[in-house]
Amino acid sequence: MNMGRLYGVGLGPGDPELVTVKAVRVIESAAVVAFFAKTGRQGNARTIADRWIPAKARELPLNYPVTTEIPVSDPAYNEMLRAFYQEATEKLAAELAAGNDVALLAEGDPLFYGSFMHLYIRLRERFPVTIVPGVTGMAGCWAAAGETMTWGDDVMTILPGTLPLETLADRLKRTDAAVIMKVGKNFAKVRQALRDSGHYERAIYVERGTMSGEKIVKLSDKADDSAPYFAIVLVSGQGRRP
Amino acid sequence: MNMGRLYGVGLGPGDPELVTVKAVRVIESAAVVAFFAKTGRQGNARTIADRWIPAKARELPLNYPVTTEIPVSDPAYNEMLRAFYQEATEKLAAELAAGNDVALLAEGDPLFYGSFMHLYIRLRERFPVTIVPGVTGMAGCWAAAGETMTWGDDVMTILPGTLPLETLADRLKRTDAAVIMKVGKNFAKVRQALRDSGHYERAIYVERGTMSGEKIVKLSDKADDSAPYFAIVLVSGQGRRP
Repeated sequence: MNMGRLYGVGLGPGDPELVTVKAVRVIESAAVVAFFAKTGRQGNARTIADRWIPAKARELPLNYPVTTEIPVSDPAYNEMLRAFYQEATEKLAAELAAGNDVALLAEGDPLFYGSFMHLYIRLRERFPVTIVPGVTGMAGCWAAAGETMTWGDDVMTILPGTLPLETLADRLKRTDAAVIMKVGKNFAKVRQALRDSGHYERAIYVERGTMSGEKIVKLSDKADDSAPYFAIVLVSGQGRRP
Repeated sequence: MNMGRLYGVGLGPGDPELVTVKAVRVIESAAVVAFFAKTGRQGNARTIADRWIPAKARELPLNYPVTTEIPVSDPAYNEMLRAFYQEATEKLAAELAAGNDVALLAEGDPLFYGSFMHLYIRLRERFPVTIVPGVTGMAGCWAAAGETMTWGDDVMTILPGTLPLETLADRLKRTDAAVIMKVGKNFAKVRQALRDSGHYERAIYVERGTMSGEKIVKLSDKADDSAPYFAIVLVSGQGRRP
C-alpha cells in the first residue's frame, strides 16, 4: 500500500485571498486537513483556510494543551509541548501510514517560526513531504503599511521582541532594515531598543496586518505600550535608489 | 474622470502555482499589465505570470537599458537607471491618469528588494496604490530545500553577497539563521565568510528554487565557485524546539 504524503501548507498573513494557488489545490485535494488550535477555539489557520476547505475533507484539529498561560522558561511548558507534538505526530503518522494525504495548515510560511516544523522534523524521515511556501505575516504587514523594506545592498534583520534590550539594540544598530516580531508584552522594551539604536522615528507599528481590525501607526505616535502577541514593528531600509 | 489604481503584484519565487489568489484576480482584471524585462527578453516576471494574463490585457513591457554590463559603482549606471525609472513612471502615470488600472508585476514580493519600489515611490503621491504581497524568492528556496529556518527566539539576517567579507562574517556571527542573496560573482567571498563565522557546515546552496533546473546542494559539497546572480545560500536556525 502506498503511503500518504504530508503537505506543509503556508496560508499567508491572514487575508484568505493571499493563499497561493498551489495551497488551494493541495487543501482541496487532501483527504485530511490538519491544523493547530487552542482547545475550544477554531484557530487562525483554520479561519484563514475556511473558504478553501471542501465539505468532503476530514478535519483533524490538533489542540494545544497550553499557549501563553505558562512562561516558556518553565520546564513544565517544554514538557507539555513535547508530549503534545509527539501525540500530534502519531495522529498524522497513522493517517499517512493508511495512505491518506494530509494537508497541515500553517499561518504565514511553514518553515519560518512555524509550529508545522515540530511535526515535520518528526515525520520527514518516515513519509514523503511537500512544503508549500506562503506569504509571511511580515510581508503582509509591510504590504498593508506600504513600507519599502529593502533596497540594493540593504541588510534586513528579523528579531523576536523576546530578546534582551541590549541584544535588540545592538542588532538594530548593525542593520539597515528590521522586523521585530512577538512585540506583545515586550512593547516598552522594543520601543527603548529602537530609541537606543537611532531607528525610532522610522519605526511603524502593525497589528492584524491584512485582516479585519488592521491597525497601522507610526510607533512614535502610539501613546500606550500595549500590543497583542502577534503585533510587529517594521523599520524600512534606506539603501541605493537611482 | 476617475484615476486608475496601481497594483504592485508579487508573483512569488518562480513556480506559477505559487502566485496568490489575489494576484491572479488583479492580473485578470487590470486593463494594463506592466513588467520589467531586459531589452529583447521576456523577463522572469512575465514568464511566471504567463498563464494568468488574459488575452484582453494590454501588455506594457518596461525594458531595462542595462543590467549587469556596467558595474553599479559606475555613476553612469545610476544615471541610466534614474532616467529609465523616470520614463517608466511617466508611461504608467499616463495610463493611470486615463483611468486605467495597471498591474505592475514583481518577482517575489514587491517591497523586498523589488524594482517595483522605484516606480512606487514616484507614483504613490499621485495615484491610489494597492500592494499585493508575494511569496519571497528566499521562502521558495527554503521550501524547496526543506530547511527549517527559524525556531522560537532565533534571529534571522538577510545579507546581500555584495557586502565586504568582514561585514558578511561579522553579521553572520551575530545571527542564528541567515539568507545570503545575490551570491553570483561573490561566491568565493560568501564561502569564506561562512567559514569565518562558523556556519559553513550548515550552509545550503540553492539555484533556481521552485523552477525548472532547480539545484540544491550542501555548500561544502559544491566544488566550484561559480553561481548565477540570483542563487542564494541558506543557514537554518537551531533555536528552541520541544
